[in-house]
Amino acid sequence: MPEYKAPLRDMRFLLDHVFDFHTHYKRLGASEASPDMVAAILDEGAKFCEQVLAPLNRSGDEEGCHFDKGVVTTPQGFKQAFAQYVEAGWHGLAADPHYGGQGLPQSLGLVISEMIGSSNTSWGMYPGLTHGAMSAIHAHGTEQQKQTYLGKLTAGEWTGTMCLTEAHCGTDLGLIKTRAVPQADGSYAVSGSKIFISAGEHDMSANIVHLVLAKLPDAPAGTKGISLFIVPKFLPDAAGEAGERNGVNCGSIEHKMGIKASATCVLNFDAAKGFLIGEANKGLNCMFTMMNHARLGTGMQGLCLGETSFQGAVRYANDRLQMRALTGPKAPDKAADPIIVHPDVRRMLLTMKAFNEGNRALTYFTAQWLDIAHRAEQPEQRQEAEDLLAFLTPICKAFMTETGLEVTNHGMQVFGGHGFIREWGMEQLVRDCRIAPIYEGTNGIQALDLLGRKVLGSQGKLLRGFTRIVHKFCEANAGHAQLGGYVAQLDQLNREWGELTMQVGKAAMQNPDEVGAAAVDYLMYSGYIVLAYLWLRMALVAQAQWADGSGEADYCQGKLATCEFYFKRLLPRTASHRAAVEAGSESLMRLPADLFAL
Amino acid sequence: MPEYKAPLRDMRFLLDHVFDFHTHYKRLGASEASPDMVAAILDEGAKFCEQVLAPLNRSGDEEGCHFDKGVVTTPQGFKQAFAQYVEAGWHGLAADPHYGGQGLPQSLGLVISEMIGSSNTSWGMYPGLTHGAMSAIHAHGTEQQKQTYLGKLTAGEWTGTMCLTEAHCGTDLGLIKTRAVPQADGSYAVSGSKIFISAGEHDMSANIVHLVLAKLPDAPAGTKGISLFIVPKFLPDAAGEAGERNGVNCGSIEHKMGIKASATCVLNFDAAKGFLIGEANKGLNCMFTMMNHARLGTGMQGLCLGETSFQGAVRYANDRLQMRALTGPKAPDKAADPIIVHPDVRRMLLTMKAFNEGNRALTYFTAQWLDIAHRAEQPEQRQEAEDLLAFLTPICKAFMTETGLEVTNHGMQVFGGHGFIREWGMEQLVRDCRIAPIYEGTNGIQALDLLGRKVLGSQGKLLRGFTRIVHKFCEANAGHAQLGGYVAQLDQLNREWGELTMQVGKAAMQNPDEVGAAAVDYLMYSGYIVLAYLWLRMALVAQAQWADGSGEADYCQGKLATCEFYFKRLLPRTASHRAAVEAGSESLMRLPADLFAL
Repeated sequence: MPEYKAPLRDMRFLLDHVFDFHTHYKRLGASEASPDMVAAILDEGAKFCEQVLAPLNRSGDEEGCHFDKGVVTTPQGFKQAFAQYVEAGWHGLAADPHYGGQGLPQSLGLVISEMIGSSNTSWGMYPGLTHGAMSAIHAHGTEQQKQTYLGKLTAGEWTGTMCLTEAHCGTDLGLIKTRAVPQADGSYAVSGSKIFISAGEHDMSANIVHLVLAKLPDAPAGTKGISLFIVPKFLPDAAGEAGERNGVNCGSIEHKMGIKASATCVLNFDAAKGFLIGEANKGLNCMFTMMNHARLGTGMQGLCLGETSFQGAVRYANDRLQMRALTGPKAPDKAADPIIVHPDVRRMLLTMKAFNEGNRALTYFTAQWLDIAHRAEQPEQRQEAEDLLAFLTPICKAFMTETGLEVTNHGMQVFGGHGFIREWGMEQLVRDCRIAPIYEGTNGIQALDLLGRKVLGSQGKLLRGFTRIVHKFCEANAGHAQLGGYVAQLDQLNREWGELTMQVGKAAMQNPDEVGAAAVDYLMYSGYIVLAYLWLRMALVAQAQWADGSGEADYCQGKLATCEFYFKRLLPRTASHRAAVEAGSESLMRLPADLFAL
Repeated sequence: MPEYKAPLRDMRFLLDHVFDFHTHYKRLGASEASPDMVAAILDEGAKFCEQVLAPLNRSGDEEGCHFDKGVVTTPQGFKQAFAQYVEAGWHGLAADPHYGGQGLPQSLGLVISEMIGSSNTSWGMYPGLTHGAMSAIHAHGTEQQKQTYLGKLTAGEWTGTMCLTEAHCGTDLGLIKTRAVPQADGSYAVSGSKIFISAGEHDMSANIVHLVLAKLPDAPAGTKGISLFIVPKFLPDAAGEAGERNGVNCGSIEHKMGIKASATCVLNFDAAKGFLIGEANKGLNCMFTMMNHARLGTGMQGLCLGETSFQGAVRYANDRLQMRALTGPKAPDKAADPIIVHPDVRRMLLTMKAFNEGNRALTYFTAQWLDIAHRAEQPEQRQEAEDLLAFLTPICKAFMTETGLEVTNHGMQVFGGHGFIREWGMEQLVRDCRIAPIYEGTNGIQALDLLGRKVLGSQGKLLRGFTRIVHKFCEANAGHAQLGGYVAQLDQLNREWGELTMQVGKAAMQNPDEVGAAAVDYLMYSGYIVLAYLWLRMALVAQAQWADGSGEADYCQGKLATCEFYFKRLLPRTASHRAAVEAGSESLMRLPADLFAL
């Protein structure tokens, strides 16, 4: 396993300089997130992740989870690490103080999430799913439900799950068969089988609170007939502790390509006692209110695993001696030059660096809007933030996981044959990353969400909310002495983006298939432009700090060189994506379904 | 595991119509490869691969190889399948009749290799490595060495290996430390440790013949001081059978991401008796004579695994019901439409189809030149073929494995969450494919070979040998009623290819790093154009057969639609690769090595 060091310098650069989180927190009245507090959280979070979670990553992958007659045991050390995590107060960091949380901004929770995901993605699934369940209960539960569950979940005594998928439906939740029958006491008897339930059963907590999508007997067909239920593994007793065992059991766990230490469960509900949360038949809406956060979290897995892969690859490229530089020996005292002298190794490393740092900036940028959506006083501000989040979320999820997968594959490639050997840990990062483009809505679904629902569905309004920011930024920095060329390149692409969108929108009015045909390439195209904007924001700060001597020269130089690389070698990929978008749906739809096979 | 059916219709289309192998074989005097014989081999090969090898693929992955005190046991059924394979005569199909082979053309051996690789890539490594060893002995062994080893290897009684890599060097073989000390009897005492030796130890054969790179005591430094040795596990006795145990032992086997049923061994040579093969200090040249074949074989792994993945994905996309088509229900009698109605699912399937069928055409096209290089009477013809092979081989290896990895990843994505579960077998194809861009010379090395050694090293001659073929083809088909637009597109790209090469060549004269900076993008750019040429060749035949009714209309329609898709959605990727090539080396080389880390 490549050793993981939290990239604190880069994190601080974004927090303190590029996005000025201190002013941001002050503006939102989050006085508890003082600069000192933020600094302490970063340092302590890094220590915990580097020292406790990272050492369990490869052993967790090798050991996997155990299943024996309905009982799931997590790999050695996982349970203890969870206890330490809870004990140190990490679990309730961004949770509501009414229920025992520390009430720090969500963005700060995400900074810690990055470190957790980089050091041990599988382990991170357990608290991650719990946070998802907490959001749902917080947003839609009755006060009594909050009292019963949120305290226990915030304290990490209990954990949570989200139970959506069934064997015959994942994307198309309107097809679910799980049923909830009303009982005389106001509860519901929930019956059905759910699959792919992360953290569905394990040994880390005293109780597991399942949030389950099911249909009432008289529910309308499709997605408008889905309700959400709280189904605890143990029913809370009069004292609020885990009492009687409920009728939910783990039937098996999946054997997967990666995230092997995360228990992916089949859960069988057999007239389990459940409690409606939110309105009947509005279950999907309840789920969607927490989607922005969950999808950003999934997108971050691309960043997290990419960062760890990059750290391993840079170290290896500096250590491994192989061949001489084409321009003559660089380490003449050694048997060969370190492979980092070779342009193609640098191409891979810089691709990794450019995507990771760009994706981190995208995460922090989005996280600020998440804070604003949650905390701003003015409803217009909250609405503006919600609009931007609606637009950015599918990009975060899909672009960051696609590029994260590319990054982890480059990291493995830098290691040559050793990258394929489990011992080095580089291939695990690829396997762990491979699920991210699939779950939490496949990247194809994200793309439809972006282009169909968000951009065209708002008549372009949500896109303009972002391109306007870019446009203003380009105006403000036009003709910049060092970076003006890139500003012009971004400005040009920003305009093209609007034109391309108009073009697709027109075509889609004639033929709805045009949306599906264009969606994934449109999303990737958009992602490259979003990252270009963020790279320029970083470069401007680095350039200024370098000029006035306020930043570390080495670090600033790295930022500026990586920005150059991004604009010259990665951003031109927009051309191919644009061409694919412009190709339209015809060549996709022509062939009858039964003629695909040879 | 997705069920595998050999794509015989597509194979026959290429063999019989696009590349007219019957005339080709006749011209080379390979009368034994009659149309009837070829047809029988295809049918029987398909049966063997579908019925014997494919059923062992997933079990082999789950079980892996076993290591116990130097003894390696292959997964259940592997040994028996090898015995059946040998018994049926597959092993000696394209081997020299002088030593018990059937003397059929190499191209026919590759057709069977595709089926083997699609049904069970891990298993195919054992005979594959043996074929490599056979070529080396055939090309460079003394008559006595051939008599001693080739018969046993051709008969499949013994198997072979290639021992190149050591822990501290893979790409840079000049650094090897294994030593060979001359003995009084004319043999050599070989000592050293080799890693990543596929089929280095196993239970399938009575003896294993290792071909080992080592240095003589007085050898010059670097790659010019490497010799090649035959080091059998058991020394042949007077009767030519496996006799005394030699000093070579398996120290361990690797735990890998994929091809888990292929034993990847650490081999320790402890004064093992070895026999020089070929000239002293010319060992690397001996290895390189078989590289074209071995690299084409590795490239084909991208095709093989891609084909199996495609078959699984098409079946699943027709079965899985999820959501309604955007243009209205297509299967109103069912709960939802099969996902193949969705444009983005089709985008993934067509991408897979276009790469697979294009890569298959590339394989067959190259295989014909391989036959010509081996069998043509005129030396000029053989030289022309060698030149084209020198040019095509790195493209086959790198482009087919890169795209194969993309294809297997799409296949997994089509399955959604189920793609990540081992049971379905789709993720195994990704894991098995992931080694192909790494071994047999990483794709970065292939790219340097193509651009540096082959194209620029020949002053563009090797490139022109191919672009001339494309140019003539475009001239001959300019203005084609149905396909003329694509012909023009190809012609344009073909010219641009030459110009881009000139540009890189000029830059490289100033700065050798320009070659390394451009190489991978240049190779991918080239690959897309090569495939465009081959797609048009296929489309022209399909169009003609459709028009005159000689082909199956459904099949021809599939070819034409896929060709359209390739030109409209995939070929535009050349634009991004060209931009990356044109970006030059500056943005890669600017950052000092110690400033990469954050």
